[in-house]
Amino acid sequence: MTKTSAGNFFEDFSLGQEIVHATPRTVTEGDVSLYTALYGSRFAVQSADSFAMDIGYPAAPVDDMLVFHIVFGKTVTDISINAVANLGYADCRFLAPVFPGDSLGAKSEVIGLRQLSNGKAGVVYVRSRGTNQNGEPVLDYARWVMVQKRDPDAPAPDTHIPELPDAVAPARLGEMLPPIDAGAYDTGLAGSPHLWGDYEAGEKIDHVDGMTIEEAEHQLATRLYQNTAKVHFNAHAQKDSRFGRRLIYGGHVISLARALGFNGLGNAFHVAAINGGSHVSPCFAGDTVYAWSEVLERAELPGRDDVGALRIRTVAAKDLPCAEFPYKSGDGYAEGVLLDLDYWALLPR
Amino acid sequence: MTKTSAGNFFEDFSLGQEIVHATPRTVTEGDVSLYTALYGSRFAVQSADSFAMDIGYPAAPVDDMLVFHIVFGKTVTDISINAVANLGYADCRFLAPVFPGDSLGAKSEVIGLRQLSNGKAGVVYVRSRGTNQNGEPVLDYARWVMVQKRDPDAPAPDTHIPELPDAVAPARLGEMLPPIDAGAYDTGLAGSPHLWGDYEAGEKIDHVDGMTIEEAEHQLATRLYQNTAKVHFNAHAQKDSRFGRRLIYGGHVISLARALGFNGLGNAFHVAAINGGSHVSPCFAGDTVYAWSEVLERAELPGRDDVGALRIRTVAAKDLPCAEFPYKSGDGYAEGVLLDLDYWALLPR
Amino acid sequence: MTKTSAGNFFEDFSLGQEIVHATPRTVTEGDVSLYTALYGSRFAVQSADSFAMDIGYPAAPVDDMLVFHIVFGKTVTDISINAVANLGYADCRFLAPVFPGDSLGAKSEVIGLRQLSNGKAGVVYVRSRGTNQNGEPVLDYARWVMVQKRDPDAPAPDTHIPELPDAVAPARLGEMLPPIDAGAYDTGLAGSPHLWGDYEAGEKIDHVDGMTIEEAEHQLATRLYQNTAKVHFNAHAQKDSRFGRRLIYGGHVISLARALGFNGLGNAFHVAAINGGSHVSPCFAGDTVYAWSEVLERAELPGRDDVGALRIRTVAAKDLPCAEFPYKSGDGYAEGVLLDLDYWALLPR
Repeated sequence: MTKTSAGNFFEDFSLGQEIVHATPRTVTEGDVSLYTALYGSRFAVQSADSFAMDIGYPAAPVDDMLVFHIVFGKTVTDISINAVANLGYADCRFLAPVFPGDSLGAKSEVIGLRQLSNGKAGVVYVRSRGTNQNGEPVLDYARWVMVQKRDPDAPAPDTHIPELPDAVAPARLGEMLPPIDAGAYDTGLAGSPHLWGDYEAGEKIDHVDGMTIEEAEHQLATRLYQNTAKVHFNAHAQKDSRFGRRLIYGGHVISLARALGFNGLGNAFHVAAINGGSHVSPCFAGDTVYAWSEVLERAELPGRDDVGALRIRTVAAKDLPCAEFPYKSGDGYAEGVLLDLDYWALLPR
Repeated sequence: MTKTSAGNFFEDFSLGQEIVHATPRTVTEGDVSLYTALYGSRFAVQSADSFAMDIGYPAAPVDDMLVFHIVFGKTVTDISINAVANLGYADCRFLAPVFPGDSLGAKSEVIGLRQLSNGKAGVVYVRSRGTNQNGEPVLDYARWVMVQKRDPDAPAPDTHIPELPDAVAPARLGEMLPPIDAGAYDTGLAGSPHLWGDYEAGEKIDHVDGMTIEEAEHQLATRLYQNTAKVHFNAHAQKDSRFGRRLIYGGHVISLARALGFNGLGNAFHVAAINGGSHVSPCFAGDTVYAWSEVLERAELPGRDDVGALRIRTVAAKDLPCAEFPYKSGDGYAEGVLLDLDYWALLPR
Repeated sequence: MTKTSAGNFFEDFSLGQEIVHATPRTVTEGDVSLYTALYGSRFAVQSADSFAMDIGYPAAPVDDMLVFHIVFGKTVTDISINAVANLGYADCRFLAPVFPGDSLGAKSEVIGLRQLSNGKAGVVYVRSRGTNQNGEPVLDYARWVMVQKRDPDAPAPDTHIPELPDAVAPARLGEMLPPIDAGAYDTGLAGSPHLWGDYEAGEKIDHVDGMTIEEAEHQLATRLYQNTAKVHFNAHAQKDSRFGRRLIYGGHVISLARALGFNGLGNAFHVAAINGGSHVSPCFAGDTVYAWSEVLERAELPGRDDVGALRIRTVAAKDLPCAEFPYKSGDGYAEGVLLDLDYWALLPR
């Protein structure tokens, strides 16, 4: 019996199946420093214990996207190592703050299956959940990927496509956020005067700066997340791939866009939910990432007057400054667009 | 109203103006590890709690230059994001040791202004101060930069040029240093037998080794310091710049030169003050940095017999071994010289 | 007197000589994060405090190879800075777990000397030992290197070649390991169902994945270990070397191969001893490292029924997938082989 795992193929999944993912991981101050070094993020709540404690946190929480990447990384080996395509994600909610010292684990439940008509692959829908060392959920999201079949002749499962919301409802946001002492939130220290009430639906913000990605950077990031997807690390094998080179993990682009977004969204300190997102085109080392955002909606959180939510579309583009807000073009995306991300962020009111 | 900040232009500064800088930052063991990985520094006091505690520290302090970079990084967005040139710094003193867990903030006061005769830009002099979470100053320095005007027709301010010392006086050094148990300072563990009394003014030391800088390295470093200067990160925009490529943050070269300086100055464990410095020529990825130092002066610290000070000039050069101590040539610097740094370091007596 | 150290030449060593190495180093969570980012290691015991505590550790121990690299790095300046060749190592045992916060030091004893017949260099055998802040040994190994003479006319020492074992005896393994609660060892979380008893001598395992090394990555790693060997960092000087470029530290390849080995050896969580190893050919940035392993021997540990030992040969190759287990060819190694490592790992029974 071979000791190596080839991962799961489409016929290995069954509806309702629960998968516990390896490897548990203690998040540390070292991870936080690397995250800062990789993206240059400057949100004050995540940057300084002093700032976080002033507004009611016990310490600076770990960046939400770092939590996402670590939990996501665990699922790759079991869910998407044989994926042909990452099709989408939805209903992603951050459920409890994570602090250095917390140990994260992850499991997934298969919530949908649909074999392709050609019989060679199928779409697997999973709901994945990250938990801390006390078993408390910290992150929950649905994701669907197209996975190859090992044996094209394996029988097709019954088709089941789960219903997933277009967006997380405002009432479900902010569960993880302790009550914030908004009066103690120092906008001068935070680096932006613009609070929740200063934004309006339809407003577009060019984040101005661009950042070039190096091979070493995305490899360090993706290994930090213990993400094992081969396409990110193996130049030798990728030579013969469609693109001829290593692909950058889509989450790396999300984190860069989020960090660039500080310039214009400096008080949007907490990503409460991700409604959906598309990695529109591949990103490679040497690409310079720019980003812009549009405020899609402004929402109150029921029962809370300390923070409010903005639904934001952040678009990242490569080698393309975003002063003119590049987005769609005809039926598809404009040339150069990398990422179309729809999420909820919370800001002090 | 745009939500992004374009930073301050020359006419936005006024004499006596105080600017609180974003973003506060907790320094951690993760930052210390990254600093070691970026420069390979080997000073025992900063490397090991055990060594630091033996001589009287409560724990290993954070490298002085890491503190400098973090405080400096905060000032960039407000002071020099529209700078045409970084002209100099002076009277830089380290005022309290920083330990992992400390949260650093920064503010600056405008101490001088002088508009250029062409009316298009002006020189801004600031005194910047870094403080810890208790409000104690940890670093204080003066700096002047040439900043563009937004509107060439904006009226010129009264010219005021501050008086700044050529060098920090020895009596002002060492304020931050706890009394050192020099008898417990183990030169074998520290890696050098040469104590303060072994050096003489005029002595030149070739630090021998060279270190090549990669794009990923200086980008990781500069983001770790949350320094937002665009020229370091954006290959796409830099293509059309004077140099056609990304520029390496000058502080990265200082830290490399300091780390190389361990070979010859292994007991110069604490940078107490920086008297001044020039970034003589630009540094790019692929350059190999070498360094040499000259002892300019040896000084006692009033009332202390545990440590003494050396005033040191460290010169860094690129792709140029320093056995012949490259420095000036005719009216300017010799070809290849990158950095001319004048600072005070403390050594056990 | 020059203040820089040129390191030791062959005639500077004498039998029985003890050398205390600079610089002591506190290992931190930052180092652990960087290690994960550099290699993507996924062994659960080292990854999560929660997992480690469940089976009997007080916290997640630091990866064994990180401990090795840090101790080894300290010895370079004194032992091998003037080495012509790294000839081998043997009898390497890990003696106590290292946790973040521990401060490591190192010393070496010269245990053998043999001048070459041409009189220009000689072989130095040392036994090096790493200790923690309490003076407890954490690592002990023998190593021999060929070191240049400063003065070819210096007299030859008496030849003394120490006896070293081909392999560490099973009875000497596991001294550092606390009793493991094997029942609490969750193979699902660990990522592999295969325990000690599932492996057999002669079994070969292809670790499948490949990882490409960038210049920035191996430089960050080698500086993190405060290893000062010039060949790894100085592209300018290496231009004129035999290979024309920077060489990657052999330990970097070991750590990559070990991390790749997770796929097939996921429960081999502790490297208890290294019996020997050869760096068969040089590794350069841009190379993609693959690896495979053979189980050489399966051994019980006297008096312990919680864990068992596997003697493993791990072979790394560059730009060469290992499904066909590339190894020897004729009298030498097959083209592309980088590393031939013989070690003992412990697994739960």
